[in-house]
Amino acid sequence: MNASPILVVGSVALDSVETPFGKAEETLGGSASYFALSARFFAPVCLVAVVGEDFESRHLSLLRAPEIDLGGLEVGSGKTFRWTGEYGYDLNEAHTLATCLNVFESFRPKIPDRFRQAEYVFLANIDPVLQREVLEQMDRPRLVVCDTMNFWIRGRREELLKTIRKVDILILNHAEVRELAGEANVLKAARAILEMGPHTVVVKKGEHGAFLFSKDLFFSAPAYPMELLYDPTGAGDTFAGGFVGYLAMVGDHGPDRLRRAVVWGTVMASFAVEKFGVTGLCRATHELIRERFSHLREISQFDPD
Amino acid sequence: MNASPILVVGSVALDSVETPFGKAEETLGGSASYFALSARFFAPVCLVAVVGEDFESRHLSLLRAPEIDLGGLEVGSGKTFRWTGEYGYDLNEAHTLATCLNVFESFRPKIPDRFRQAEYVFLANIDPVLQREVLEQMDRPRLVVCDTMNFWIRGRREELLKTIRKVDILILNHAEVRELAGEANVLKAARAILEMGPHTVVVKKGEHGAFLFSKDLFFSAPAYPMELLYDPTGAGDTFAGGFVGYLAMVGDHGPDRLRRAVVWGTVMASFAVEKFGVTGLCRATHELIRERFSHLREISQFDPD
Repeated sequence: MNASPILVVGSVALDSVETPFGKAEETLGGSASYFALSARFFAPVCLVAVVGEDFESRHLSLLRAPEIDLGGLEVGSGKTFRWTGEYGYDLNEAHTLATCLNVFESFRPKIPDRFRQAEYVFLANIDPVLQREVLEQMDRPRLVVCDTMNFWIRGRREELLKTIRKVDILILNHAEVRELAGEANVLKAARAILEMGPHTVVVKKGEHGAFLFSKDLFFSAPAYPMELLYDPTGAGDTFAGGFVGYLAMVGDHGPDRLRRAVVWGTVMASFAVEKFGVTGLCRATHELIRERFSHLREISQFDPD
Repeated sequence: MNASPILVVGSVALDSVETPFGKAEETLGGSASYFALSARFFAPVCLVAVVGEDFESRHLSLLRAPEIDLGGLEVGSGKTFRWTGEYGYDLNEAHTLATCLNVFESFRPKIPDRFRQAEYVFLANIDPVLQREVLEQMDRPRLVVCDTMNFWIRGRREELLKTIRKVDILILNHAEVRELAGEANVLKAARAILEMGPHTVVVKKGEHGAFLFSKDLFFSAPAYPMELLYDPTGAGDTFAGGFVGYLAMVGDHGPDRLRRAVVWGTVMASFAVEKFGVTGLCRATHELIRERFSHLREISQFDPD
């Protein structure tokens, strides 16, 4: 693989999730896990995160892959970050029941020397101050992609805006785009965010697909049609893994590449949501991934008239 | 124009609508009005509906167009059907404040002789018993497309199922598909409906686009991206007008035509929702319509990889 390596900084967690279709207890989760397990199909991944002393080898083994460098996975003294949540029949929205930050509470990402040259950076959803600290440790990344959430949009707005000024692409969901811009119409909201710094904004709409906005490009991608949606946890980070992974693989960020990156992200997310935790993603293969890309193309293309 | 004529049977009404962006009082509305004003850009339309003695010429003049044959527009003794509704910021759902059926209550569609040979039929949302009465009066339509609503799905299920068995294409919204099939997943629900008779089901998803399902075809169309959504009233019938209109114009219902028909429907609906009542639709031109089709193609297509 000649693709550029991608640095991801985020969480590695143990998730307990209940949906109308079943439940899972203490399965491997966290933004960095989903991202890495998705992006590795496209490019090497350098993972920076922290786990506790209780992190079992059965969880670690899920992250062990030739394309994932775990040299930045610290073991802190204390317990691993745990998240407990549930989804109702409207699987678009998670209800958090408990968040135990544990070792994640005092996480200060230290980027190993050999990771600092990574040309692609994904700042998963962590404190925007820490996101900037990551960037300060990097040599000269070609593309910085950033995620965040309503918690930081509401509670750390000024810090978040400082971070956003330094990133190339911001990936948010529908609600976050509206909240960050203070504007109900998603198109107007995305345009307002382009004024805040990023040259591109990706809006994830769950079962309704995704939009990509940049100054000269608007792209509307369909969702992957799912008959069995089991567990949406991690879908966003898995999407980001396909999106950034593809860009790192091709080393080009032109409009046609950006469009396809959204579609690869969508394809990867389809694997994440069809089983609990990372199980679906771990069953993906290059062949299945390519098949779903072709299928998505087939169901969404139409001729000129 | 060599297109086959389309018969539409539905309502012509006076709507009073309030949205967060303004209000309109007693403007021309009704399923047959929206359908005809949309389909006329593609094919001649034969309209069958009833209005009351109070229907003013300023409303009638909006329906007068060389492509619309009003020979089936009865004037009943009494008042015109009136609908009063409002929309909140979530413009996807109408809240009905008042429905005064008036002359529409005793409407029994009589198809004028010269309309009976129409090869294309759109049964707008009326009592499913009346929808069948329309079909019985037709000679031999090539394509019958049908709409309905939750009111009939709940209250007239058996009659509706009898009607559905006789139609080729059913156009429903997201919620109606689920309710008719008794299945939460839209893909499974649509497949269940294909077993009820129609060879094709179109699922309108408002701002999220539309799906088309048939035995061998699944198509996902993007919505037209709107910055200004003023009034969603009539969007579904306008969509149907573009969809059926295009099929009647090309006289072919193959998979590639069905895909494009969904896109033309989407384009037409974009005109309906950008102004109150039929105002937006009345400002459409062939040139603007073609421009929006091209735009929709441009924002949703991507290359194979």
